[in-house]
Amino acid sequence: MAGNSFGELFRFTSWGESHGPAIGCVVDGVPPRLALTEADIQPFLDKRRPGQSRFTTQRREPDEVEILSGTFEGLTTGTPVSLLIRNTDQRSKDYGEIKDKFRPGHADFTYQAKYGIRDYRGGGRSSARETAVRVAAGAVARKVLGETVTIRGALVEMGGIGVDRSRWDWDETGRNDFFCPDAETAARWAEYLDGLRKSGDSCGAVIEVVAEGVPVGLGDPLYDKLDADLAKAMMGINAVKAVEIGDGFAAARLTGSQNADEMRMREGKPAFLGNRAGGILGGIANGEPVVVRFAVKPTSSILTPRLSVTRDGADTEVVTKGRHDPCVGIRAVPVGEAMMAVVLADHLLRHRGQCGG
Amino acid sequence: MAGNSFGELFRFTSWGESHGPAIGCVVDGVPPRLALTEADIQPFLDKRRPGQSRFTTQRREPDEVEILSGTFEGLTTGTPVSLLIRNTDQRSKDYGEIKDKFRPGHADFTYQAKYGIRDYRGGGRSSARETAVRVAAGAVARKVLGETVTIRGALVEMGGIGVDRSRWDWDETGRNDFFCPDAETAARWAEYLDGLRKSGDSCGAVIEVVAEGVPVGLGDPLYDKLDADLAKAMMGINAVKAVEIGDGFAAARLTGSQNADEMRMREGKPAFLGNRAGGILGGIANGEPVVVRFAVKPTSSILTPRLSVTRDGADTEVVTKGRHDPCVGIRAVPVGEAMMAVVLADHLLRHRGQCGG
Amino acid sequence: MAGNSFGELFRFTSWGESHGPAIGCVVDGVPPRLALTEADIQPFLDKRRPGQSRFTTQRREPDEVEILSGTFEGLTTGTPVSLLIRNTDQRSKDYGEIKDKFRPGHADFTYQAKYGIRDYRGGGRSSARETAVRVAAGAVARKVLGETVTIRGALVEMGGIGVDRSRWDWDETGRNDFFCPDAETAARWAEYLDGLRKSGDSCGAVIEVVAEGVPVGLGDPLYDKLDADLAKAMMGINAVKAVEIGDGFAAARLTGSQNADEMRMREGKPAFLGNRAGGILGGIANGEPVVVRFAVKPTSSILTPRLSVTRDGADTEVVTKGRHDPCVGIRAVPVGEAMMAVVLADHLLRHRGQCGG
Amino acid sequence: MAGNSFGELFRFTSWGESHGPAIGCVVDGVPPRLALTEADIQPFLDKRRPGQSRFTTQRREPDEVEILSGTFEGLTTGTPVSLLIRNTDQRSKDYGEIKDKFRPGHADFTYQAKYGIRDYRGGGRSSARETAVRVAAGAVARKVLGETVTIRGALVEMGGIGVDRSRWDWDETGRNDFFCPDAETAARWAEYLDGLRKSGDSCGAVIEVVAEGVPVGLGDPLYDKLDADLAKAMMGINAVKAVEIGDGFAAARLTGSQNADEMRMREGKPAFLGNRAGGILGGIANGEPVVVRFAVKPTSSILTPRLSVTRDGADTEVVTKGRHDPCVGIRAVPVGEAMMAVVLADHLLRHRGQCGG
Repeated sequence: MAGNSFGELFRFTSWGESHGPAIGCVVDGVPPRLALTEADIQPFLDKRRPGQSRFTTQRREPDEVEILSGTFEGLTTGTPVSLLIRNTDQRSKDYGEIKDKFRPGHADFTYQAKYGIRDYRGGGRSSARETAVRVAAGAVARKVLGETVTIRGALVEMGGIGVDRSRWDWDETGRNDFFCPDAETAARWAEYLDGLRKSGDSCGAVIEVVAEGVPVGLGDPLYDKLDADLAKAMMGINAVKAVEIGDGFAAARLTGSQNADEMRMREGKPAFLGNRAGGILGGIANGEPVVVRFAVKPTSSILTPRLSVTRDGADTEVVTKGRHDPCVGIRAVPVGEAMMAVVLADHLLRHRGQCGG
Repeated sequence: MAGNSFGELFRFTSWGESHGPAIGCVVDGVPPRLALTEADIQPFLDKRRPGQSRFTTQRREPDEVEILSGTFEGLTTGTPVSLLIRNTDQRSKDYGEIKDKFRPGHADFTYQAKYGIRDYRGGGRSSARETAVRVAAGAVARKVLGETVTIRGALVEMGGIGVDRSRWDWDETGRNDFFCPDAETAARWAEYLDGLRKSGDSCGAVIEVVAEGVPVGLGDPLYDKLDADLAKAMMGINAVKAVEIGDGFAAARLTGSQNADEMRMREGKPAFLGNRAGGILGGIANGEPVVVRFAVKPTSSILTPRLSVTRDGADTEVVTKGRHDPCVGIRAVPVGEAMMAVVLADHLLRHRGQCGG
Repeated sequence: MAGNSFGELFRFTSWGESHGPAIGCVVDGVPPRLALTEADIQPFLDKRRPGQSRFTTQRREPDEVEILSGTFEGLTTGTPVSLLIRNTDQRSKDYGEIKDKFRPGHADFTYQAKYGIRDYRGGGRSSARETAVRVAAGAVARKVLGETVTIRGALVEMGGIGVDRSRWDWDETGRNDFFCPDAETAARWAEYLDGLRKSGDSCGAVIEVVAEGVPVGLGDPLYDKLDADLAKAMMGINAVKAVEIGDGFAAARLTGSQNADEMRMREGKPAFLGNRAGGILGGIANGEPVVVRFAVKPTSSILTPRLSVTRDGADTEVVTKGRHDPCVGIRAVPVGEAMMAVVLADHLLRHRGQCGG
Repeated sequence: MAGNSFGELFRFTSWGESHGPAIGCVVDGVPPRLALTEADIQPFLDKRRPGQSRFTTQRREPDEVEILSGTFEGLTTGTPVSLLIRNTDQRSKDYGEIKDKFRPGHADFTYQAKYGIRDYRGGGRSSARETAVRVAAGAVARKVLGETVTIRGALVEMGGIGVDRSRWDWDETGRNDFFCPDAETAARWAEYLDGLRKSGDSCGAVIEVVAEGVPVGLGDPLYDKLDADLAKAMMGINAVKAVEIGDGFAAARLTGSQNADEMRMREGKPAFLGNRAGGILGGIANGEPVVVRFAVKPTSSILTPRLSVTRDGADTEVVTKGRHDPCVGIRAVPVGEAMMAVVLADHLLRHRGQCGG
């Protein structure tokens, strides 16, 4: 209710501030007898971990996850899985100046207004550091989904420069610093981002996450549509300002005869001849790849001085020092993948509950 | 859990099929002692009602709402408000052909796959008719918000033709058939849509909803961010494929120095010099207008024959006869307004619960 | 959240006041393809209906249920089942005096204090009339459970007079006016209650509900234990002040060697040699009959004048005229059965969701 | 949903097994700006801690709580409070024999049946050790309630020997090993329990918890009645088999004229002349002390051999070695107090949300 849990049957509850002793979550509703150890989770955290290239924050956290409960002899037991990640590189001295000034674009002002108090060290609870927890929960969700569901994400636009879809190669996303599916675009981004970093500025990005093998029938009608839950999941990621499914905003510029994906029997099963719908009709998965895209605004922490006000109500200027990602969108890729996994795992259990099978 | 409820503290549960005897909802959590009669709800239903111009479906429903519980002598009592709207113009004969064929773009196939059964008369539960219920619940939500919060929506793009924002006039939205804030664009749309209607085709649209006077502090962090809940609310509306807050996708093409709204003291209070954030920072309202846009795909019911399959697994073609909106986006405007009201009312009560005040 | 919904996966939301036009509920999460018509629900409502003997209130309501949604051609579709029961015999004139006086033992004072307003006609929302809705929802829950689960209730104590368990006969519960499993005790109760009615007084009762055939494994650990949910369900029934499972309070007077039900293999399956646990261990069903008992306080509406205060804060006396049950416990039997069904149906779906099968 | 969370607006989610590295919980929905440090929680854990007398298990755990998040400079921030208690005295070798045998009265059989797997070391998740987490959450709940609400518990019956209420002295509960409000009864219990311990047997108990200063109006009608939530909270405590409010089962043996608490104005405010209702009418607090009692069955772990079956389906006998409480009811007193605090804190926030004030 206070905003720190996600999911219904597969549900995780997150806790922790960027500069406290640790962050973590409790994952409840995990079905029993799934193989699960830290080794199933760590690779996804490593993918998100900062400090791996010059294009992400130089904050260095090993982000080692510990499973504190819910498994026995390497298998889940159906009881809550408690995950803990210690904070090790906090350097809270870096953040002294923002104690009394609200950083434009950050949650400083709204947290202060809502709660009348805030942990000003590095964003506290609103820090992107919390997304490590989502990635960990997403790794557990992948175990629930099993091997027949494949979830992959890619950065598809940065600073207004989009990928060339004709060169799309999922394997390439693992070979460059941007999760870019197209090596040439990755090279352009590197150049662009180097320039931006030098000027102390930042840029936005668009991420695309695709899930293949999603069983037909996942999702609930009306208010818990699969796409509605995906929209909530993605919009809840730090700095995200927009979400679209399938053709998204472009669908609004099509006619009905262009837009609706036609159907034909293929190998004895109904199949779609296109996927403008992004794998979802009426809120329910139709068997085609589930496709979601979301926009990440440029990092608000920049070296350019910006007009602001103090907590005491005086005009001021603020420059956000410290170590920051010039494009937080990059590290949002594994976070988006994780939230896709969480939403699908939750709906898998919900579907099984109501409809059996 | 099965997808028919929305909200937590202010929560409505919807029921009813397009061709059953009635549709309705139960609104729970309404604070006591608010003035509420049918006359507070009916105008919003009238705004959404079909058959008011040649640009919407000719199905004629008076859509008269009855309050069955929860008020006493014109005031809410804190108990559930049950709202009922009878279906009067059902003509289920129109829908005979779709019993066995899946209409492309519709939920026919996925409902059948999920439930193994479907009410094929006019879309049943997945019909846009259900949105009347959301509008009714939204009217109750407006009472919770009170008069200091103003919620208004407009159609801002149809068939790829966008409004001219320099001519934006909220009053104009009440004067044309499209909730268009710009009379010239409305005239262009009328011409465009007349052509489309004649060819039996349909088109998509983009809706913008703006809430002014939203108290600073509404919203919850992380997973129940105000924007995340808005994204879920809007994506849950029939045919919606994309949602954005403030600058949305455009923010991904800005730099950090362009994007972050700067602050200055104004009349003794912190104020923002821009509103690219759409009134929300870190998931919490910052006092600026809350701005959300969503894309509606073109109506899937069109007269052009489309390839499809039958329930028994044979290739076929399908033409959707009957009375349909050439652009469902038009009537989505009051629905979007309603869902904005519901999300804000829910967060108002939640904020009051956790933080007092 | 506001207290009008029960259950998680199988969830119903109730609405309506005793003197409004109707009462009803929305049952969400009903699995698809279950046979369901009004005829499946009506017999349970008839069992609870007042005016069937001289021992219950003479208010006469046909309590005819209408299914407004969620079924198609006699089968559930997986969409919400909306149930409506019209109020027909309201005689609100009977209740004029209690407008300004708080009736001791009733919810008048607390509703007024909580909401600052109350529908004083016949108890409004707090009237036992609302329990008809629970009975209707329970009938739907029975369809979810199927025929292998048998749920039966009996009155086992009235005015301090308990049944003789050696004469227990379930069939007898359908033959007397008290749902009493023992004809001799029923005769004693009739005599006792006739005396009480003449003096304008009332009495309390104890109800026992037993579910047989409950699948092993239903229930969740810790906070949503099957017995915890049953306790909540039964304590939520009007006038209930106590709940126990299996031996209940008597278990507190046993030693460990007396109390724990021993086990032996029986026909190749683990079985229990006793059932002091009432069919639940660690919150999870163990395959034995699930046994719950609850105590109903004496009807607070009595003809004896009682000291009270007015809404305006003056001392007064109050006599509750009108038509009332001398022992509300009698009609609580079908309500207790219904809530047992609801709790079990909910846990059946939850178990299926998390653990499959 | 999987049973490890309690509460709605004030909500905690528990995790951990008795023989894992730690147990803990996340408390979400804590209002901001409450003073909270470990020192506010530790005294309640100390009160529950085992090994403090010869009448409780000799397992020795310091039960030191760590706050990992949600506070800043000694004040809550409105973000989740993560609490962790390390397990230090696990001796899992003691529990080897129960790997393959189901202990009568324990959850071994049902966990195995539900999940197909169980952590057999000391009861795993079903161990009473988990109740330390509830006590910790309860300490946070007390901060939410503030100093005007007083919550106290006492053991009122053990092995069938009840306290003498004429000698009730709350202070005495802190002076003996049983939380007994009556020194003479405490002495009798000591003698009784010594005898029981020597024979390797165990006994049950009844606990009473009283909350004074509860604001009028807390609680929700119908399904989330304050007493219904208390019933769920108490029945969810390990080994509890019965719950009653106010006069409870005794109310079923009264007449209406005896039972209903009359009212009179006292110091300008409505007051009740008795409290048979236990402070709750229609599910809502009436300002009188909230009184709940619950029965704890005798500890199932006893030295007497009992008939059982093995996991492989063979008849066997089982003796539960290890260190166990001869009367788990003793340490249930602080747990019952804690759950009272949690229920009241949750309803305080819920009431504030819906009704303001």
